[in-house]
Amino acid sequence: MENNQIKQNRDFMKCPILGEAMKVSDQSKGLPHPPHGKMVDTPLITLQSFNEEHNNPIKAGDYSTLLDIRRSVRTYGKTVTMTQAQLAFLLYSTQGIQEYRGKNEAFTLRTVPSGGCRHPFETYIAVRNVEDLQPGIYYYSPMAYVGEKKVAITFLETLEDYENRITQMLAGQSWAANAPVVLFLTCVPYRSEWRYEKHSHRVMLIDLGHVGQNIMLSAAAMGLGSCCMAAYDQDLCDKALNLDGVDEYMVYAASVGMSVT
Amino acid sequence: MENNQIKQNRDFMKCPILGEAMKVSDQSKGLPHPPHGKMVDTPLITLQSFNEEHNNPIKAGDYSTLLDIRRSVRTYGKTVTMTQAQLAFLLYSTQGIQEYRGKNEAFTLRTVPSGGCRHPFETYIAVRNVEDLQPGIYYYSPMAYVGEKKVAITFLETLEDYENRITQMLAGQSWAANAPVVLFLTCVPYRSEWRYEKHSHRVMLIDLGHVGQNIMLSAAAMGLGSCCMAAYDQDLCDKALNLDGVDEYMVYAASVGMSVT
Repeated sequence: MENNQIKQNRDFMKCPILGEAMKVSDQSKGLPHPPHGKMVDTPLITLQSFNEEHNNPIKAGDYSTLLDIRRSVRTYGKTVTMTQAQLAFLLYSTQGIQEYRGKNEAFTLRTVPSGGCRHPFETYIAVRNVEDLQPGIYYYSPMAYVGEKKVAITFLETLEDYENRITQMLAGQSWAANAPVVLFLTCVPYRSEWRYEKHSHRVMLIDLGHVGQNIMLSAAAMGLGSCCMAAYDQDLCDKALNLDGVDEYMVYAASVGMSVT
Repeated sequence: MENNQIKQNRDFMKCPILGEAMKVSDQSKGLPHPPHGKMVDTPLITLQSFNEEHNNPIKAGDYSTLLDIRRSVRTYGKTVTMTQAQLAFLLYSTQGIQEYRGKNEAFTLRTVPSGGCRHPFETYIAVRNVEDLQPGIYYYSPMAYVGEKKVAITFLETLEDYENRITQMLAGQSWAANAPVVLFLTCVPYRSEWRYEKHSHRVMLIDLGHVGQNIMLSAAAMGLGSCCMAAYDQDLCDKALNLDGVDEYMVYAASVGMSVT
């Protein structure tokens, strides 16, 4: 029944009694925490710094101003190149690891908060037009620089027929393919399930919004536009990013670039 | 089966094919959009301005700095009063309506983004210690000032035995009861279901994170600490806020105040 589905979905948004699930979680059993990121066996590329005066990509850094100017942007100049410093700030501000915490570095503190400091997300970048980077799909490795304002990515693969593929992956949102980059955020659910078991998933969706808000504020701070997308083609995205759709799957996308109107 | 529940929850996080639900939504049937906020029949209290130089509550407004200093804070000084301007900025920055859009003002643009501009949330404030406000539960009415940097709230009820009640409502997180305010965010699901039908709920949880991130950044910008909470006692919160738990229910809480360590 349709109404029954809506009732179930509404209930999913509510807070269950947590105690029971916490008692059977792998953390409570003393099992080791899962890694905070993927192992990378391709060469790391350290992007140009965003943290020096001559290279600072921030144009309008006042937070109150950002609240006024932040709007979803769906028109991008195909020929406007994103700088490496812009991409670096964007990635750092949404997933950068500031420090490890806990026994055996079980937790990470990042530029966004996450329930239980689990940070169950990974960031892939579809690059169309970024200074000195070949187009294709990259992976951001926050673990490469912990506690430093530096960003390393690694090249995964080219994306043949870029505009059509991105459009299909984003369920027809063709304007996003014009942006210099599209971020694809994926979820590695066990990172949170290790602690919160079956009560992880509602919290992970909320955490995803924390990341999304920083993407949009960071874009605005750099004078760029962005649009976050909860609509996409699940199978096409999972396949393009080589995810199994079970232990890691796509959850959110965001286009970022210079707005042209 | 436990594993089956985890599989179902993982699947809830994924993007379904949207077309079908959109075709049967009330919006597609031409039904009028639901109101963007609750009708208020108690007197509105306009909080002191946060938007004038002499009253500006912002201490550290640089966005890059906020990324460095934002941390969950769980120790609050019981005797430190929050100013009205601080509360006003906090509320405006998380739900303030900047303008109406669309036919019959069907959509609102706010200081945070929301899927389809639905903004399905309401904000209640448990006031323990705010300048010139009697303690109790208030409701924030964003519709009172659209396109203006002004904030109006209305007093709903006193909360007898404040510390114990807040502690119970927040499932034992007693430190939150020391904060001068606790925000209780609720969801009015039909506001999003009107457009997205059974596919609303995943998107609303992500949207909730957008709001949460601004709560934390705004607190940090004012030199205050905050802690967002996805764990709370659903029934106690719904009852305390006089919600039916079906057409409106609690989804997220946040304590905000001066950190003492």
